[in-house]
Amino acid sequence: MTVQIVPQPALAPPLAEPLSPDALEAALRAIGAARYHDLHPFHDLLHGGRLSKGQVQAWALNRYCYQAAIPRKDAALIARCTDRDLRREWLHRITDHDGSGGDPGGIERWLVLTDGLGLPRDYVVSTKGALPATRFAVEAYVRFVQEKSLLEAVASSLTELFAPSIHRRRIAGMLENYDFIDETVVAYFRRRLDQAPRDADFALDYVKRHAVTAAQQQAVLDALTFKTEVLWAQLDALHHAYWSPGLIPPGAFRPESGEGVS
Amino acid sequence: MTVQIVPQPALAPPLAEPLSPDALEAALRAIGAARYHDLHPFHDLLHGGRLSKGQVQAWALNRYCYQAAIPRKDAALIARCTDRDLRREWLHRITDHDGSGGDPGGIERWLVLTDGLGLPRDYVVSTKGALPATRFAVEAYVRFVQEKSLLEAVASSLTELFAPSIHRRRIAGMLENYDFIDETVVAYFRRRLDQAPRDADFALDYVKRHAVTAAQQQAVLDALTFKTEVLWAQLDALHHAYWSPGLIPPGAFRPESGEGVS
Repeated sequence: MTVQIVPQPALAPPLAEPLSPDALEAALRAIGAARYHDLHPFHDLLHGGRLSKGQVQAWALNRYCYQAAIPRKDAALIARCTDRDLRREWLHRITDHDGSGGDPGGIERWLVLTDGLGLPRDYVVSTKGALPATRFAVEAYVRFVQEKSLLEAVASSLTELFAPSIHRRRIAGMLENYDFIDETVVAYFRRRLDQAPRDADFALDYVKRHAVTAAQQQAVLDALTFKTEVLWAQLDALHHAYWSPGLIPPGAFRPESGEGVS
Repeated sequence: MTVQIVPQPALAPPLAEPLSPDALEAALRAIGAARYHDLHPFHDLLHGGRLSKGQVQAWALNRYCYQAAIPRKDAALIARCTDRDLRREWLHRITDHDGSGGDPGGIERWLVLTDGLGLPRDYVVSTKGALPATRFAVEAYVRFVQEKSLLEAVASSLTELFAPSIHRRRIAGMLENYDFIDETVVAYFRRRLDQAPRDADFALDYVKRHAVTAAQQQAVLDALTFKTEVLWAQLDALHHAYWSPGLIPPGAFRPESGEGVS
């Protein structure tokens, strides 16, 4: 009895020779083109106005788990970094999300979004209604940054290279398609349009300068692939629970009856 | 704008007063009755002969990730345990899976199952074709046992209380319904029919003796709930990728064309 294992086109064979910095950048961008979660059908549903308010609520309260974990992830990177310049550069990622001085920060802007969707803050912050698969994926990301090499930890942030275009589509699509979405609640995404490219450019430059051997470059490519899996798995879980087939796990958020699952 | 958050019946309010040992056991068994993965529709498909060989392959190679992690989970428990008697009692769980002397162990028996399904061993062992959501859930379990209290770590094993009945249904259903399944490949489950009850009885007795305050008992109930989420999330991921809607994430195992996804 034999079975043919279908080749996986997005998984290149391990690098035998080091790439030039520009070829490494091209390989990283190819991973985004094949695996970034802008390709996931749940995003088409979200941006295209196909979801009920209850389904948008489910998306927002699950995605909150990811937002809320980012400062821990970035602190984990700083915690293991002996390079003061890199620590200084990385620190603003924490304040971008946690806020500082007069800036309430990205997590607060996310809660403005869940407020606007009518979700009680304490319920969102408790993460009690989130899908277990969301928490597992998010915590896998935090742990990856704690445990892998610093270079891999930096590389795992590179999905931000691909974020601005999906944020632009999200802002336009959600404002146009949902009467419960207005400018106030998309403030998170507007702000990320400025923040993400700056961070992505820094991390890309860092990776291109520090990943010089074939093994280092392979580790960087694998780190970005891992991160795309973290993002994709969260949308798979949402799609399965709240769209098709609509199997909500025990204990997870259930949209109000009448506006719920398709 | 308000939204009614639907009460989640399986999540009881935190305990205010300690339960008697027998009431604690009843509360633990109620979690199993509401949340154990024998309730998941993917198991009905698997045991009822509704899956193609390719879909059974997908189940077996994903579940391998869980089997392969169990000795690490049990070693993590022993690694933080200062009670020699408990360490001595717990040790056989590692050899049950890794094997010892003439016994090849449970992981080897699982590979006999994937062999019988025609999957190359090196592909299964690499876990390269497994769903990322499987890996995230499994590693969340290992980390839970590393990081939570010893009592919670022991309690998270209590899903074994509910395992024998699903194993009996699996053995009978798979032998009856699939011509590619025979006695050789169900050896793993036959062996667990003896092993799981012994382990579950010990852990239940331990938990009933050591969880005496309301806070400890709540932690024990939460630990078992967490573990049911780990199991349920793995089946959700399989169901989504290989049954309905059949959205296989980038890079994951794709059954041979012609016998694949429904």
